[in-house]
Amino acid sequence: QGTRDNPPAQTALRDRLLAAVVACFKRHGAAAIDTPVLELRETLTGKYGEEAKLIYELQDQGGELLALRYDLTVPFARYLAMNKITNMKRYHIAKVYRRDNPATTRGRYREFYQCDFDIAGQFDPMIPDAECLKIVHEILSDLQLGDFLIKVNDRRILNGVFSVCGIPESKFITTCSVVDKLDKMPWEEVRSEMVGEKGLSPEAADRIGEYVQLHGGLELIEQLLQDPKLSQNKLAKEGLGDMKLLFEYLTLFGITGKISFDLSLARGLDYYTGVIFEAVLLQQENDRVEKPVSVGSVAGGGRYDGLVGMFDPKGRKVPCVGVSIGIERIFSILEQRVKASGEKIRTTETQVLVATPQKHLLAARLKLISELWDAGIKAEMLYKKDPKLLKQLQYCEDTGIPLAAIVGEQELTDGVVKLRDVATREEVRM
Amino acid sequence: QGTRDNPPAQTALRDRLLAAVVACFKRHGAAAIDTPVLELRETLTGKYGEEAKLIYELQDQGGELLALRYDLTVPFARYLAMNKITNMKRYHIAKVYRRDNPATTRGRYREFYQCDFDIAGQFDPMIPDAECLKIVHEILSDLQLGDFLIKVNDRRILNGVFSVCGIPESKFITTCSVVDKLDKMPWEEVRSEMVGEKGLSPEAADRIGEYVQLHGGLELIEQLLQDPKLSQNKLAKEGLGDMKLLFEYLTLFGITGKISFDLSLARGLDYYTGVIFEAVLLQQENDRVEKPVSVGSVAGGGRYDGLVGMFDPKGRKVPCVGVSIGIERIFSILEQRVKASGEKIRTTETQVLVATPQKHLLAARLKLISELWDAGIKAEMLYKKDPKLLKQLQYCEDTGIPLAAIVGEQELTDGVVKLRDVATREEVRM
Repeated sequence: QGTRDNPPAQTALRDRLLAAVVACFKRHGAAAIDTPVLELRETLTGKYGEEAKLIYELQDQGGELLALRYDLTVPFARYLAMNKITNMKRYHIAKVYRRDNPATTRGRYREFYQCDFDIAGQFDPMIPDAECLKIVHEILSDLQLGDFLIKVNDRRILNGVFSVCGIPESKFITTCSVVDKLDKMPWEEVRSEMVGEKGLSPEAADRIGEYVQLHGGLELIEQLLQDPKLSQNKLAKEGLGDMKLLFEYLTLFGITGKISFDLSLARGLDYYTGVIFEAVLLQQENDRVEKPVSVGSVAGGGRYDGLVGMFDPKGRKVPCVGVSIGIERIFSILEQRVKASGEKIRTTETQVLVATPQKHLLAARLKLISELWDAGIKAEMLYKKDPKLLKQLQYCEDTGIPLAAIVGEQELTDGVVKLRDVATREEVRM
Repeated sequence: QGTRDNPPAQTALRDRLLAAVVACFKRHGAAAIDTPVLELRETLTGKYGEEAKLIYELQDQGGELLALRYDLTVPFARYLAMNKITNMKRYHIAKVYRRDNPATTRGRYREFYQCDFDIAGQFDPMIPDAECLKIVHEILSDLQLGDFLIKVNDRRILNGVFSVCGIPESKFITTCSVVDKLDKMPWEEVRSEMVGEKGLSPEAADRIGEYVQLHGGLELIEQLLQDPKLSQNKLAKEGLGDMKLLFEYLTLFGITGKISFDLSLARGLDYYTGVIFEAVLLQQENDRVEKPVSVGSVAGGGRYDGLVGMFDPKGRKVPCVGVSIGIERIFSILEQRVKASGEKIRTTETQVLVATPQKHLLAARLKLISELWDAGIKAEMLYKKDPKLLKQLQYCEDTGIPLAAIVGEQELTDGVVKLRDVATREEVRM
């Protein structure tokens, strides 16, 4: 349940999509790493907040207690700490596992690919963070998914807001995960969950509400830097200062048009410590083909400066920032688009079919195809001793093979091959 | 335990290796599919003989009882049956899981890649089987792993041998898995396991010994076809007839020089029904660098005509034959070879580093790098506001970046960029 087989057409489409993502990651100078699907259970414990209940655990069959990885970020942090790496730019494309309620039509699965790009190391503020946002912008533009918006916030600003609203520090993380629901439910419901389930005072909730409904650009950052309460809070001030710097860099990259500083963005995971962001596709009004699927966020990420230290025996920190591309959701959109357009995706790359027009020529076919393979040419033949020529040409048309190399008795005698263009039916002897 | 992180240099090498394998599979017209790492436990039950105890099971957390896939063949058969596909040529490259005793220096892991190519469908005998052997031959030749030998046998011939040696049919599978140990232990030990643990009579074991120590080519096939006992056995006769046909096709492919018909080859898995094969690397006598690692089999496969039917409610059969490339073992060899040669593998593809020779030029760098990325050029910069030029050039040398695009105050005034060849130190303004 919640997983799927990918038949050839889907796999070909997915490979195309992943190739575009990898091209972008390589363009930004990232190296690839690979880590096991299996992690020690204790590695995953305490990293995912309320979502931890969704971790797949392996049966205790003797030996270590194992679980399936939940994302690629925690394994990356574990990898850095184990190998004492303090400086790295890497990408990792692999499957992760979550015992979630699947919603397969919207691209939500229990097994799904993540495509992560992360920069680890102590650097000058906001330069790597800005690059992560540039990457999201490049990938979503390259894939021509239509209009999109990248929401940006900072955990320090959120914590500052909670603090000046009178929330005790012990409730920051819970409050954060409630705020995170603002993209799925209206403020009134979020407010009542804060007051009811989470036990915040109605006044505190209302004060939070005034802040988290704000969004804008540089002018909002300036405005909040002047805010009499927030400007007194050390964390918020730091966060707002960095947010201003980030917007300066994004202006140089020329991408602020699609970026929104949005105080309602919280992101559910425990490990974020600074900038956080999430990209959403916007509904197109004039979409003539059909209404696009509502897929929610298609990319997200942020800064997690404390995670690596959790795996280091001496707690040595390695600051990190990274982005994860929601490839499954993007794939759902592309899949639907291909379906609507009627485009037929070729699932093989075969260049030529080796064919014979008469019986008793299997040996000739086997010899010729072997020569072609050895010369690096993508070639197929039908696995029959005496197939009809029509059947062989039909196979070319069905699977999109452009050429047929035909050897009959005459060709064998003359020592030539007849090469036929399947579409135009033109033939040359060679 | 028994898994490993793959750092960038290993991942780059593995990607190179996988690319060569995929190129061969595509050359033979295969389409790619992808199936989940998780399978229902019942799907895997009864397919792997004695090896079933090595299956990783997931904890029962409510819902279905799951396990990690053990190979890619059983999931492929399940996929064909579920989708009622009777005809397909596919490849699948993915990780599989076995709770085996790891022997990591010899490339034996609990999590490892398999690279499978299979042909499903009812075809004329031995044509797809011959192609599988051609593929093994192509891949092992392409990778320049040194001399190799592909051993070939047929389950029907083995069963015929067991039958004429007086083994009851109920003991065929057990006998098969003992014979399979002949590549690791001498005949005397195998014989004593047959008689001791498996309860065969000493006479029967001796009769088996006479057959399973035979190996050769076409002349051995002819000899066995004349064997007074074997030629009376229906299964053996069928198997030997097909083996003869196979050798005819392999002769047309020009690869019999590396193929040996070997009656000791049994292969452990239950599901094989016809041709089976396994490729081994041969020790090089004149290897000057160092003794090659003994890695055992580097490819294997065979025909499994009954497996798909086990997943079909009506038991409809789809004949299949396939090959699995032992990429981990090959990878171990290549890894050791790279280590011995001192070759430094580049882990990124960055073409140019954007650099500045003076302070206060971060904005110029960000603007230029953004232009390069948008033009599809692989570019990096250091994440510092004011890095020293020497540090920037050093980074190029350390990571193999061939060019530096330098913008200083003079270049900014003139509206140019100074492009420096890192190796030759030549510079051009452009």
